[in-house]
Amino acid sequence: MATNRKYLLSQRPDGTPNRETFELVEEDVPEPGAGEALVRTLYLSVDPYMRGRMRDAESYAEPWDVGDPLQAAVVGEVVESNGAGFEVGQLVAGNLEWADYATASGSALQPVNPDHAPISTALGVLGMPGRTAYFGTREVAEPKAGDTFVVSGAAGAVGSVAGQIAKQSGARVVGFAGSDEKVEFLEDECGFDVGINYKDTDDYGAALDSAAPDGVDVYFDNVGGEITDAVFSKLNVDARVAVCGQIALYNEESVPMGPRKLGKLIESRAQVQGFLVSDFSPRFEQATRQLAKWVSTGELAYRETVTEGLENAPDAFLGLFEGENIGKQLVKVGERSE
Amino acid sequence: MATNRKYLLSQRPDGTPNRETFELVEEDVPEPGAGEALVRTLYLSVDPYMRGRMRDAESYAEPWDVGDPLQAAVVGEVVESNGAGFEVGQLVAGNLEWADYATASGSALQPVNPDHAPISTALGVLGMPGRTAYFGTREVAEPKAGDTFVVSGAAGAVGSVAGQIAKQSGARVVGFAGSDEKVEFLEDECGFDVGINYKDTDDYGAALDSAAPDGVDVYFDNVGGEITDAVFSKLNVDARVAVCGQIALYNEESVPMGPRKLGKLIESRAQVQGFLVSDFSPRFEQATRQLAKWVSTGELAYRETVTEGLENAPDAFLGLFEGENIGKQLVKVGERSE
Repeated sequence: MATNRKYLLSQRPDGTPNRETFELVEEDVPEPGAGEALVRTLYLSVDPYMRGRMRDAESYAEPWDVGDPLQAAVVGEVVESNGAGFEVGQLVAGNLEWADYATASGSALQPVNPDHAPISTALGVLGMPGRTAYFGTREVAEPKAGDTFVVSGAAGAVGSVAGQIAKQSGARVVGFAGSDEKVEFLEDECGFDVGINYKDTDDYGAALDSAAPDGVDVYFDNVGGEITDAVFSKLNVDARVAVCGQIALYNEESVPMGPRKLGKLIESRAQVQGFLVSDFSPRFEQATRQLAKWVSTGELAYRETVTEGLENAPDAFLGLFEGENIGKQLVKVGERSE
Repeated sequence: MATNRKYLLSQRPDGTPNRETFELVEEDVPEPGAGEALVRTLYLSVDPYMRGRMRDAESYAEPWDVGDPLQAAVVGEVVESNGAGFEVGQLVAGNLEWADYATASGSALQPVNPDHAPISTALGVLGMPGRTAYFGTREVAEPKAGDTFVVSGAAGAVGSVAGQIAKQSGARVVGFAGSDEKVEFLEDECGFDVGINYKDTDDYGAALDSAAPDGVDVYFDNVGGEITDAVFSKLNVDARVAVCGQIALYNEESVPMGPRKLGKLIESRAQVQGFLVSDFSPRFEQATRQLAKWVSTGELAYRETVTEGLENAPDAFLGLFEGENIGKQLVKVGERSE
């Protein structure tokens, strides 16, 4: 009987998670039940929202209990089907365990076509992050020609796509990112007008004055915290803010404090809207088709940062909070069979 | 030659304004220029937004310079017209000086009809505060039947009207106010479902759990600060927040700190929208007509707190920040001529 490795939530993190947060256990490879498939993991996605599931608090994603297997979006290969409606060898995506192998109901798996784009993109530019950028930009932030569009976490899986979609609409696009290499990616590959390396910048407000001299019409927020404070101070009349993520705050154990900015909304008549990509699920296929088309024509640039080995998945996750990734952070767990 | 008293901005307040903020000067009654009227003040309005004009900072309302006459919405009587298009003795409203007499261009004055409602209402329920509540509730906050609608500063000139308009739409209406007398006004005269005396309440969150057991669908914010923090924590999915005022913060000299709440907007997909009533000016007449109809039929309750004498206008203004008023705070400066 083959062995399966999988990660459990070992303990709830107190502040920033670390290696002790995760426990790697070994077990027999599970058997698929009726209607289920056994899937061998090829790529596993680590995402900032997972930090919320480690917390013992109700939110939009159900919290994990201590001892629960961690879950992630996975692209894998069907190795056994027990009436799941998939062929052995077929490539699929789904929310599975952080493991070498996992079972899933056939209805919880989506086919992945390897002819369209590299299969890893089903977790990034053609997956949840790409769709988050797509709907967040087009349906929530709504940049218009001539607008100045600012995105934080700009070199991440969501931010880099959001900025490019904003650019399509004719906006001036400014991105905050955490290294010169990321800024180069934004300006040279993604067509951003200006990238700001915030780790190299003492005064975000002054950096914005220079990068967005006409103020900010639209802000796509992935990070929260001090970058967001600076952007709020520059909001123009009728500005729109799409709140997508707050990664700068996810490791805080108590609610962090910051300047009260609602008064700025009165003056600017700005609108701030939080959103979850899941609310757009009826339109996921449409979005994925559009994103795939842009990727295939080269209109949409993307990057992936791939960590090798399931045993390094915790580090890949922890690296998100250090900004170690450019584009989508993935873990490569297995090779496709020949 | 008759004497005119008027108030100047004596110095910019450092924190909470006080008597030293104001200087009362005497001068000759001014002469109206061509196209102007001389107006004798009957009622003068003091409003929280005026605190912003005392600050040396750009905002939606132009800052006053030190030595400038203070300005306010005024209802008065035309005592002289120099081609202003008004009759002597006619009642008018306009943005005039804090003074016994002031001149104004005829085009900057609106006629006030004393047969519709007491003339003082042109500064409150039928004036800017009433219209702010009207548009802020109907066009920004948009309560629907079955929603729980929470308003802060609920017994003020705006909040008391906002809650009643929300009630018309079939919402459950909860108001935060600062005394038992105000709570009684809300519950007994304005038809609120629950009034919360926040000065008598240690735990705003617990008070909300009891007053709004199904959470908050719509929040009309007049105050900001800790009450707003508590309400944000209770926002339901798809909640809407209309940011109208932040009186709890207006006397802070540096930007006050508070808990960062944008993450709550993601979870709730809530929308926060700042607004200024001036953006609805093309529809002011419509709103005033509707409000006047509701007042005349008794569907809309209102209160006024009247301070006697121009010399007490500073105290009336300062009292706004202590919550001394129920409903609209006015200063009665003169009597109508027989």
